[in-house]
Amino acid sequence: MTVIDAVDKPRRRRGRDARKQARTERPVRFLPELDRRIPVIDLMSPDQVKHIHDATMTLLENKGIEFRDDESVALWKAAGALVEGYRVHIDRGQLLELIATVPESYTMVARNRARSVTLGGLKQIFTPAYGSPNVLDLDGRRRYGTLADFDAFAKLAHMSPAMHLSGGVLCEPMDVPVPKRHLHMVYSLIRHSDKPFMGMVTARERAEDTVAMAKILFGSDFVENNTVMTSIANCNSPLVWDQTMLDAAKVYASANQAMLYTPFVLGGASTPASTVGSLVQINAEALAGIAFSQLVRRGAPAVYGQWLATVSMKSGAPMAGTPEICHMNMLVGQMARHYRLPWRCSGGCSSAKIVDAQAGYEAARNMYGVMMAGANFVLSTTGYMEGALTQSYAKFVLDAEQMEMFYRLGQGVDFGELDAALEAIGEVEAGGHFLGTKHTLDNFERAFMMPELMNHDSFEQWEAEGGLDADRRAAARVRQMLETYVPPPLDEAVDEELRDFVARRERELPDDVR
Amino acid sequence: MTVIDAVDKPRRRRGRDARKQARTERPVRFLPELDRRIPVIDLMSPDQVKHIHDATMTLLENKGIEFRDDESVALWKAAGALVEGYRVHIDRGQLLELIATVPESYTMVARNRARSVTLGGLKQIFTPAYGSPNVLDLDGRRRYGTLADFDAFAKLAHMSPAMHLSGGVLCEPMDVPVPKRHLHMVYSLIRHSDKPFMGMVTARERAEDTVAMAKILFGSDFVENNTVMTSIANCNSPLVWDQTMLDAAKVYASANQAMLYTPFVLGGASTPASTVGSLVQINAEALAGIAFSQLVRRGAPAVYGQWLATVSMKSGAPMAGTPEICHMNMLVGQMARHYRLPWRCSGGCSSAKIVDAQAGYEAARNMYGVMMAGANFVLSTTGYMEGALTQSYAKFVLDAEQMEMFYRLGQGVDFGELDAALEAIGEVEAGGHFLGTKHTLDNFERAFMMPELMNHDSFEQWEAEGGLDADRRAAARVRQMLETYVPPPLDEAVDEELRDFVARRERELPDDVR
Repeated sequence: MTVIDAVDKPRRRRGRDARKQARTERPVRFLPELDRRIPVIDLMSPDQVKHIHDATMTLLENKGIEFRDDESVALWKAAGALVEGYRVHIDRGQLLELIATVPESYTMVARNRARSVTLGGLKQIFTPAYGSPNVLDLDGRRRYGTLADFDAFAKLAHMSPAMHLSGGVLCEPMDVPVPKRHLHMVYSLIRHSDKPFMGMVTARERAEDTVAMAKILFGSDFVENNTVMTSIANCNSPLVWDQTMLDAAKVYASANQAMLYTPFVLGGASTPASTVGSLVQINAEALAGIAFSQLVRRGAPAVYGQWLATVSMKSGAPMAGTPEICHMNMLVGQMARHYRLPWRCSGGCSSAKIVDAQAGYEAARNMYGVMMAGANFVLSTTGYMEGALTQSYAKFVLDAEQMEMFYRLGQGVDFGELDAALEAIGEVEAGGHFLGTKHTLDNFERAFMMPELMNHDSFEQWEAEGGLDADRRAAARVRQMLETYVPPPLDEAVDEELRDFVARRERELPDDVR
Repeated sequence: MTVIDAVDKPRRRRGRDARKQARTERPVRFLPELDRRIPVIDLMSPDQVKHIHDATMTLLENKGIEFRDDESVALWKAAGALVEGYRVHIDRGQLLELIATVPESYTMVARNRARSVTLGGLKQIFTPAYGSPNVLDLDGRRRYGTLADFDAFAKLAHMSPAMHLSGGVLCEPMDVPVPKRHLHMVYSLIRHSDKPFMGMVTARERAEDTVAMAKILFGSDFVENNTVMTSIANCNSPLVWDQTMLDAAKVYASANQAMLYTPFVLGGASTPASTVGSLVQINAEALAGIAFSQLVRRGAPAVYGQWLATVSMKSGAPMAGTPEICHMNMLVGQMARHYRLPWRCSGGCSSAKIVDAQAGYEAARNMYGVMMAGANFVLSTTGYMEGALTQSYAKFVLDAEQMEMFYRLGQGVDFGELDAALEAIGEVEAGGHFLGTKHTLDNFERAFMMPELMNHDSFEQWEAEGGLDADRRAAARVRQMLETYVPPPLDEAVDEELRDFVARRERELPDDVR
């Protein structure tokens, strides 16, 4: 198996604490990026792919796309594109030439090199949810997120084997002033986990501060020559890249850091009420953003992709797990493969307000479609509630376990097992059973996953143990994880320099958004 | 769209009842069998398929398989197979010759011909859960099922657009003596829905009574020449077909009625702790059962397939939705396609005790895997809880809505929409929106599904409306459906004859199992 057992162990305790620790302790496991060994679902014929490509090129050439930022349109002009105000008409020859220099895959280096991950091609990574202002806490209360919540989610991400990054905006720490929030988030991601992390994007200076902190952590030269972060630029769909996002893209691309170029799809609102129509618009927006990144720095890692929802005609709210979202993910994936670009989408999405059956249905459906589509960077696999407005502790760990199962699903089937299994069949008599056989005892744990947060006890035993629903069982697991969390080692001088940087920038930055 | 709006309407009511009816009434919709237009996931190379086939043939030739029934082994002997006691060694040439006469697809004729369904090849049908002794009722109580519950589930199946059959053993009516239960179940399935149904299998005479009732409903000649039912024969895995199941198979196959030949897989208990090892055993058991059906009657419809779970090493209980179950479904589907046989598996399975997040995660994961595997006859798509021990009313309707979404997923993408959508993109300005456009208004409902039992309201609105979880919202939907249910018309003379048959057989049959 590909599980790495980490050497990190909780600090030893004594007496009653030690007994409690022994009961609750579990080694921290990590999974490397998934090296996919199952096929993807392609919904389009080669002719249909070409048709979507041609429609996209025509759209970018004729209607064009807006880059609402003077520096950015200057870059396009300098590259010879036809620019009218902020509107850029991108010629298909130029576009294809620009995206050709994007790496088909890239590695995000972690401060603990054993946690570095590669994505692109058949390699996939899973990451936590992003950007919720609210949290659903362990008592089931919905409230604004705080920096303490952020820290806790970073710890959970660190301890979840199938989470390949510590995360990005794990939740909005609403108790920290907006202009200073990014400092504390980046520090928390670095301090609480040794996995790679995501950068801040809501203003140029926040992206610059993130890069500065990465340079403290890794060294300036190292960051210049390696990718240690991936950040998000959302397209203001339809067909607008705005200054905030372009500023962040310029900072990260010029520092050789990766960026997700993400059309923000609310099917029927920001894209047409059509799956294939939305596909053309997504394709145009993502490709234009990626092409722009190559104007900033040729060869900078860039990821194709989208955040996808269809909207409810009843409330206008985003829906998750619908068949059209599954279709769109599959279509987008096929286009990304056509262009040989790594691509992203969002995984365990839900509109549920509490961790009920809806939360389970939607997260599993949405993520299964993503898995079949083969996304390389799967954002928001854990904790996502209420159309991204709320991050749930309980759902975080439920989803994290689901992601271990999706990881296993993606690993495919081991045919090397066959001969020993056939021997076992030969030995068990007709009408007998395999339960006590040596083959079963030797192989069961490796052969069949047993998700621990899914209860498989008898009704009677389940009832005797309190009759807890999945939400409450998961809350108990979160408490246990946070109790046994051990921070990964961080060089003290580096830590001090990071904290000094945060303190200095805190003094320099205003408390209010100017 | 492929939705048929039925003419069935509730009886008119007056005054307050009429107003209530107007509020709750919704036309009964039906979906024909799914004509799949998305690819399946094939996990094996052609060489691997051949390897599994060869291993299976060697197993059936060398170890053989038991048919624990004198009549059955006599049929095998007469056909020239090597028989030792109940053990039959099936030569690969004979096996392939026998399964070659099984129809690649077949039609189940419904008493309302508009509800007839075809399965096999790219055609898929979805059916309710099967065989639970318990129900989880509308007040969340777990108790033994009754005939009244059975009737209610038959009504729900009738009213659920993506349910293609009224069902089989929708739950065990524990208030009816075992030897008489089948009569009331078959009558309920016929009376409460005009969709095709499943037959009873727990004794030869019960299968015979089912065929007799079908002959009353359709006429003897019609049943001789058409398939109106599909029933289940479970293999007593490993490698035993027992007399009860073989008796039922003989009755149905000789009457030209279809049968699911179903290895009962508890991975690690009734099959080896290996996905590919289990596959060989499933393949051997299913093919042997199907070959047997052709000894009874050449050309009788027979379905390849399995009931699949892996077992928990903690409790020995079956688990659902695990990656290995998804893998096995994909592998089994590929083998069935290799043999050009229609195949079955189970869909919305769960081990959950209540309709919580676990129920949602497991049902969605399990069913999504089945959908990607492309099963033709998907049993147990609705209401399945607690490893098949309990049937839930609330989960029934939640799952039924999920199945409408899976149906839509399977229909694939409509490229005919593209030009109109491109025009809409051309008309909306950059940074604008599509919400009020004519294209969106004209296309939204057709373009994007909006599942009604999934709540997409704002948190505030959801809270103001009672803050109900999916379980309680679904229970309300069940009440409303049962209130507005209208029985489909049934010829009165036929109904009387059926009731007379049931009454006569009730008198003839004992109250206790002898």
